[in-house]
Amino acid sequence: MAPGKGNLVVAQSGGPTVAINNSLVGVIDQALEQEAIGGIYGAQYGIRGVLEENLIDLRQVPAKDLAGLRRTPSAALGTVRHKLTDADYDRLLEVFRAYDVRYFLYIGGNDSMDTAHRVHQLALEANYELHAMGIPKTIDNDLVGTDHCPGYGSAARFVALAMRDTGFDTEAMALGSPVKIMEIMGRNAGWLTAASVLGRQGPDDAPHLVYVPERPVSVETLLGEVEDCHRRLGWVVIALSEGARDEEGESLGRSGLTQEVDVFGHRMKGGAGDEVAQLITAKLGLKARVDRPNYIQRSFMSCASSVDLAEAYSVGRIAVQNAVAGASDQMISLVRVSSAPYEWTTGMTALREVANLERPLPDQYLDRADGHVTEEFVAYAKPLLGDPFSLYTRLSPRYVNRT
Amino acid sequence: MAPGKGNLVVAQSGGPTVAINNSLVGVIDQALEQEAIGGIYGAQYGIRGVLEENLIDLRQVPAKDLAGLRRTPSAALGTVRHKLTDADYDRLLEVFRAYDVRYFLYIGGNDSMDTAHRVHQLALEANYELHAMGIPKTIDNDLVGTDHCPGYGSAARFVALAMRDTGFDTEAMALGSPVKIMEIMGRNAGWLTAASVLGRQGPDDAPHLVYVPERPVSVETLLGEVEDCHRRLGWVVIALSEGARDEEGESLGRSGLTQEVDVFGHRMKGGAGDEVAQLITAKLGLKARVDRPNYIQRSFMSCASSVDLAEAYSVGRIAVQNAVAGASDQMISLVRVSSAPYEWTTGMTALREVANLERPLPDQYLDRADGHVTEEFVAYAKPLLGDPFSLYTRLSPRYVNRT
Repeated sequence: MAPGKGNLVVAQSGGPTVAINNSLVGVIDQALEQEAIGGIYGAQYGIRGVLEENLIDLRQVPAKDLAGLRRTPSAALGTVRHKLTDADYDRLLEVFRAYDVRYFLYIGGNDSMDTAHRVHQLALEANYELHAMGIPKTIDNDLVGTDHCPGYGSAARFVALAMRDTGFDTEAMALGSPVKIMEIMGRNAGWLTAASVLGRQGPDDAPHLVYVPERPVSVETLLGEVEDCHRRLGWVVIALSEGARDEEGESLGRSGLTQEVDVFGHRMKGGAGDEVAQLITAKLGLKARVDRPNYIQRSFMSCASSVDLAEAYSVGRIAVQNAVAGASDQMISLVRVSSAPYEWTTGMTALREVANLERPLPDQYLDRADGHVTEEFVAYAKPLLGDPFSLYTRLSPRYVNRT
Repeated sequence: MAPGKGNLVVAQSGGPTVAINNSLVGVIDQALEQEAIGGIYGAQYGIRGVLEENLIDLRQVPAKDLAGLRRTPSAALGTVRHKLTDADYDRLLEVFRAYDVRYFLYIGGNDSMDTAHRVHQLALEANYELHAMGIPKTIDNDLVGTDHCPGYGSAARFVALAMRDTGFDTEAMALGSPVKIMEIMGRNAGWLTAASVLGRQGPDDAPHLVYVPERPVSVETLLGEVEDCHRRLGWVVIALSEGARDEEGESLGRSGLTQEVDVFGHRMKGGAGDEVAQLITAKLGLKARVDRPNYIQRSFMSCASSVDLAEAYSVGRIAVQNAVAGASDQMISLVRVSSAPYEWTTGMTALREVANLERPLPDQYLDRADGHVTEEFVAYAKPLLGDPFSLYTRLSPRYVNRT
C-alpha cells in the first residue's frame, strides 16, 4: 500500500567509496520525481545526523552539483560508524515524527542494514507509517542477498590496475628487490584481494600468490610458495589481504615473529604486509617491498568503474521508487542476468536476511592448490570493473649473438 | 665531429617509472632514422646487461610493440642498481670494442649519470671513440641541470589525485578517524610530497600539513600543528615524505618513540607514516590512518601525465640525435620556456655537473610558517602533471529548520 505524502531522510554510513555519492544522487533524483515525497533531507554523518537533527535540505542542491557529486568520491553527507542504543531508537522515532519522515533510506554495509531493519521494526511496533529501505554499499563485497555490492567494482578496478603496474615494476627490479607484497583491504573477506588477479595478461603475471582470510595458510606454506615462485620466475608478487591469517587464526606475519609492542604497550601496527615482508627477508634472504594503498583503494575516482557508478546510482533510484510503491524493510539488491555479455537488474532482499551477516568468498572462487583464485571468479568479477584494460607490452627478446 | 657508423647500446637504470619506456622508444625511433647507427642493442638490467653481454636486438621489435611500450610502465629492459668497480670498467670497454659500440645511452638518475660520465672518460683515456649520453629519469625530480625530470610529472599526478581522494575520504570520516597520513616517496628530497598539494581546490583541502626532508620539524611542532588543524577543521591530512625528519635528523616518528627492534634485531620497518600515526594517536588521542602507496606512485600508468610521457620520449630521441651529431658526456635536460602557457625545449648539461648530486626543494618553494609549499611551487609543478583535474563537488548545506 502506497503511503501518503511525507518527507524522506537519506544517510550514508560506514566506509566511503567512490560510488556512494551516486547512490545518494539516485535517491535525490528519484525523490524529486515522486509526488508522494515532500521534503528530501540528508542526515549528516549517518544516523547521527538524525539523532542530532542535522538535516540538509537536498531539494536546494543545484542540478550541476548533483551531476558533480556523481564524479566525486567519498560520502558527501559525511559518514559514521555508530551502534545504536535503545535510547537512540526512541530518539529516532521522535525525530521522524517531528519532521514527518515517512521514508528512510540508509546507504551502507551490513551494520547499516541492521540499523535500517531495526528502524523499520521500531516504526511498525509504534504503529508509525515508515518505509525503511537499505541501499547496499561496500568495497568489501561481503553483503549477502546481492550478486555484488556498489563500490566493489571500482575498488577492484583500482586494485587490479595497481597490482598490474607494481607487478611490472617488480619484474624490472627482479635482480635487486625480487619480492613485492601488496596489502589489500579486507579483514574477513578476500573479495578485493581476489580482484588483484583481474589485470593479469598471462599465467606468470602478478600476483603469483594470493592470501585471503578464507584460506588460512601456515607460515611454512607461505615461505615455501614464495621460494618456489622465486626459483621459477626470479620474482614474486603477493596479494595479501590485510586479514590474511594462519591456521591458528593469527595474522600471517605475526605468527612467525614475537609480538612486538611499542613504548605504550600497544602492538606495533605496521600491518600484515610489513610483517610478512620482514619474515620473507629474514627467512629467505629475499628483499621484499610493500605497497599499502589503504584508503586510496576505496576513494580513487580517476579509475572508477563505469559499471559500478551506474549501478550505485540505480540502486538509489530504485530504493525510492519501491518505497513509494509500498516496500519497506528491504535492501535493494543487484541481480546478475548474464555475465557475458554482462547484464543486470535489481531485486530486493529482506533486511533481516542481510543484517550483520558476511559473505566470504565461496569455495568455487578459491583454489589453494595453485595459490590462486579460479577462472570462475574471474568470470564473475571482471564485468564489474567496467571498461577492459588496455594491454601492456613486454619485449620478446631476440638476443644479439655473442662475440 | 660526427663518428662513423657504429652500434648503439641503451640501458635503463634505477627505479622504474611510468615514463622510462617512452625514453627507450624515443632512443629506438631516433636510432632507426640514423644512418650512422648500425645495431641498436638493449642491455638487460642496466649496465649489468653490458657486463654480461645480455644484449637484445631492438631493431627486431615490431612497430606495434614500440607503440605498446609507450603505454607500459616500468622498465622493459629491466633495471638495476649497480655500483661499478674498476674491473667492471675494463670489462665494459672490452664489450664495447667486441660489439663495435660507439653510442652508449644510459637512462637513469644521478648514479646513472655518474656511470655514463665514467664510461665516457674511460673511452677517452683508451682513445676509443664512444659517445656516452645520459637521459634523465627519476620520480624524485632531484637531478641538477634540468628544470625537471621525466617520470616526476606522472608520479606527481598520481600523488595529487590520490591525496585529493583520500582527503575527501578523511573528511567524510572526521567523526571517527579524523587524521590521515599519506607517506610519499622521497628519502632526501620532498618534490613528490610537495606535489600532493596540486589537487587542492580550496584552502582547507587536503593536505593540511606537509613534511619534507628539507624542513626538519620537532615532534612537538608536528603534534602542535596537528592539534591546531584538528581544532580548526575537525580533520587533518598530512603529506609525509618517507624521509621527513626532526631537527636531529631522526625520522619523525622514531624520535618520539623508543627504537623498536624485531626478533632478528632489525629495526621494525613500518615506515615513517605508521610511526607518526602511532605518535599522534598516543599523544593526541586522535585515530590516525596511513596510506602508503609506495611503488604504485611510480608505476601507475592509468593516470600518467601526457606532458611527462611526451617529454620522456623526446629526451630519448634528442639524446641519439645529439650523440650522432658528435655530443658526448652530456645529459639531455628539460628547459622551461614558459610556465603559462607551458612551453619547453631540451638542452644539455655536462654529466660531471649532474653525477651523484641531489637537488633539494629550493627555499622559495617551501614555507614552514603555514606548513605548506608555496604558490611559486604550484606554478612550477602544475604544468608537469598534464591535463587539468576535473573538479569535485561538496554539498553547500542548507539546513532544514529544527522543529
